[in-house]
Amino acid sequence: MPRRIVTLTTDFGTSDHFVGAMKGVILSICPAAEIVDITHEIAPFEVTEAAFLISEAYPTFPKKAIHVVVVDPGVGTSRRPILVEAAGQFFIAPDNGVLAMVYGRTPHKARVITSERYFRKPVSRTFHGRDIFAAAAAHLAKGVPPARFGKLIDDHLKLAFDKPARTGKRIWTGTILKADRFGNLITNFHVADHPEIQTRPFEMQAGVQRITRLALTYADAHAGELFLIVGSTGYYEVAANQASAAHLLGCGVGAPVELTIY
Amino acid sequence: MPRRIVTLTTDFGTSDHFVGAMKGVILSICPAAEIVDITHEIAPFEVTEAAFLISEAYPTFPKKAIHVVVVDPGVGTSRRPILVEAAGQFFIAPDNGVLAMVYGRTPHKARVITSERYFRKPVSRTFHGRDIFAAAAAHLAKGVPPARFGKLIDDHLKLAFDKPARTGKRIWTGTILKADRFGNLITNFHVADHPEIQTRPFEMQAGVQRITRLALTYADAHAGELFLIVGSTGYYEVAANQASAAHLLGCGVGAPVELTIY
Amino acid sequence: MPRRIVTLTTDFGTSDHFVGAMKGVILSICPAAEIVDITHEIAPFEVTEAAFLISEAYPTFPKKAIHVVVVDPGVGTSRRPILVEAAGQFFIAPDNGVLAMVYGRTPHKARVITSERYFRKPVSRTFHGRDIFAAAAAHLAKGVPPARFGKLIDDHLKLAFDKPARTGKRIWTGTILKADRFGNLITNFHVADHPEIQTRPFEMQAGVQRITRLALTYADAHAGELFLIVGSTGYYEVAANQASAAHLLGCGVGAPVELTIY
Repeated sequence: MPRRIVTLTTDFGTSDHFVGAMKGVILSICPAAEIVDITHEIAPFEVTEAAFLISEAYPTFPKKAIHVVVVDPGVGTSRRPILVEAAGQFFIAPDNGVLAMVYGRTPHKARVITSERYFRKPVSRTFHGRDIFAAAAAHLAKGVPPARFGKLIDDHLKLAFDKPARTGKRIWTGTILKADRFGNLITNFHVADHPEIQTRPFEMQAGVQRITRLALTYADAHAGELFLIVGSTGYYEVAANQASAAHLLGCGVGAPVELTIY
Repeated sequence: MPRRIVTLTTDFGTSDHFVGAMKGVILSICPAAEIVDITHEIAPFEVTEAAFLISEAYPTFPKKAIHVVVVDPGVGTSRRPILVEAAGQFFIAPDNGVLAMVYGRTPHKARVITSERYFRKPVSRTFHGRDIFAAAAAHLAKGVPPARFGKLIDDHLKLAFDKPARTGKRIWTGTILKADRFGNLITNFHVADHPEIQTRPFEMQAGVQRITRLALTYADAHAGELFLIVGSTGYYEVAANQASAAHLLGCGVGAPVELTIY
Repeated sequence: MPRRIVTLTTDFGTSDHFVGAMKGVILSICPAAEIVDITHEIAPFEVTEAAFLISEAYPTFPKKAIHVVVVDPGVGTSRRPILVEAAGQFFIAPDNGVLAMVYGRTPHKARVITSERYFRKPVSRTFHGRDIFAAAAAHLAKGVPPARFGKLIDDHLKLAFDKPARTGKRIWTGTILKADRFGNLITNFHVADHPEIQTRPFEMQAGVQRITRLALTYADAHAGELFLIVGSTGYYEVAANQASAAHLLGCGVGAPVELTIY
């Protein structure tokens, strides 16, 4: 049996048995699965951050990769598990918006997962990551056709995390999608939607600071200086050379930013 | 050669070369090993936490999986390395109680590992994870029969971490096995041993709080409210909806809890 | 196609999409790659720590293993990507000294990576871990001969992180290479270069403390006592039994230590 990639993106952290249990379930059902940790360090319950993260990671993966995304504040309630096909790959997640930025990038089909035969029994009330999401992913990896999991739906949750709102003639209000390990603050302003930042004077307000400089590389700026940069994601990031912009500004995921173009 | 699962559970963290060195040793001896990280974030020297964690993770793994568990405050002293067979799976660990909750779940056989031919030489005084435990696991993965590692023993350390003591007519004193990533406090009261919590008025004292409510899902409670819940492990957990019970109570692994049934 | 080991050592942390994106790129180019995380927790921009860490991990790996080491404060500037062959293994990294302790252990050959056909296009300015280092490693894993990546060079950066300076007749000044998870401070004094510590009275100054005792195992010392020990790496470590020497001394990576032999 050929290897089949199953990636994991969760807010479970790596200090509990949760991730190990998901891996065990997957390997018990599909011994040929190739499990790839993307991250387990999504901030607890931060659906936006997970939505951003999987949307950045999946395009690097090959066709047929299966991505399990479990950030699930509503576990145990009626929110649905879904199976999404997009870009020749598969996504298994709760229907809470965590895949919304994938939908924004590429056409997709969504199914509600209803076939309990692909669950691990008994299904616990609090650990669907193991009992539903990991188990369904492993059956998919083993060759169960997507249509067996449940019907196509179109009422799944679509959210536009990555579109700043125009709040004035030359003003847009956006947000921080992610504070990365280096303290760079990834905004939801994308270079494709806001090319004018490259050519015209601008001001980006973040925390109590106003940033007016766009740099090409981190090394272009003085140590500690705040600037905008087009990150590897295509989103503008608030950064500081060899320092943490998040720390300097006291900002994190979900903080508002405001762009003015002059 | 078919893939053979070797899982790792340690208190080594992921910021040092320790885990990488264990993986290198395993893959050098057994190139077909499929290494699976369970966790490396056991609190340093916390044998109880590791015992709980591996006992929750192994049941999800397939037959023949090999689990390496290295939480080893006595490294360099005379504590013995052991090889345990249980539930069709294998466990390699120091004989310090770290496998005790596995023994509590299923019949098992234990051997002391004495065959130095399966060690990496020279054996350092401080890094048996690499030189003894990883090396022995890799030889086992490669097909060396368990009996070759050493003799069966029956005097290995058995401890009952998971049994609260009855300290009064209607009173039991237990402990916290684990504070999970979300701050849920997993007690050593198991639903199978204490079903009365489900049907009768009770009080669970943890820190300075008395908890009297049992919830079915996290979402059943108000944000920040403390309650008991049957976790995915079958143990009662002290939890708070979208908040950290560990933080609210100032409690962690090893803290006492007291149950009174009315 | 046989499995080919590709290890990852970075300062990217595990909370971002960076590591997942590198893994996706590798598996897209070389589906048979066996990706092994060594660590992603190098302190940001700490080339010395990464140099130490990979030099400790690689010797446990089998021939033909490919090690990707990305700690790259100069990303986007003119520092070169290099491919190094040493000990029958391969190393792909920026030419900033991060492989210097590998060079110190074994003969090696270095090439500058110039063949852009092995990069992921377009090459971003800020994420060469994905676009250059991961992509080149995957092509190497897939069977591209090393000579295809670029010419042999001899002017790559060689640094002697692991040699204390003699600063007096009986005095050497060294540094801390790494504070490990347990707070042990790994110095750059190696037992092979400084055997006299084993046989003569000595004093090691670290922070405001003078350490005069060499212990054979952690358990030999009283709880909390500071002592020297020969670590599993062969370097002397400042340690404390069941306590963090780093915390007791307020010292970390890069802190100076001074050895006097009497």
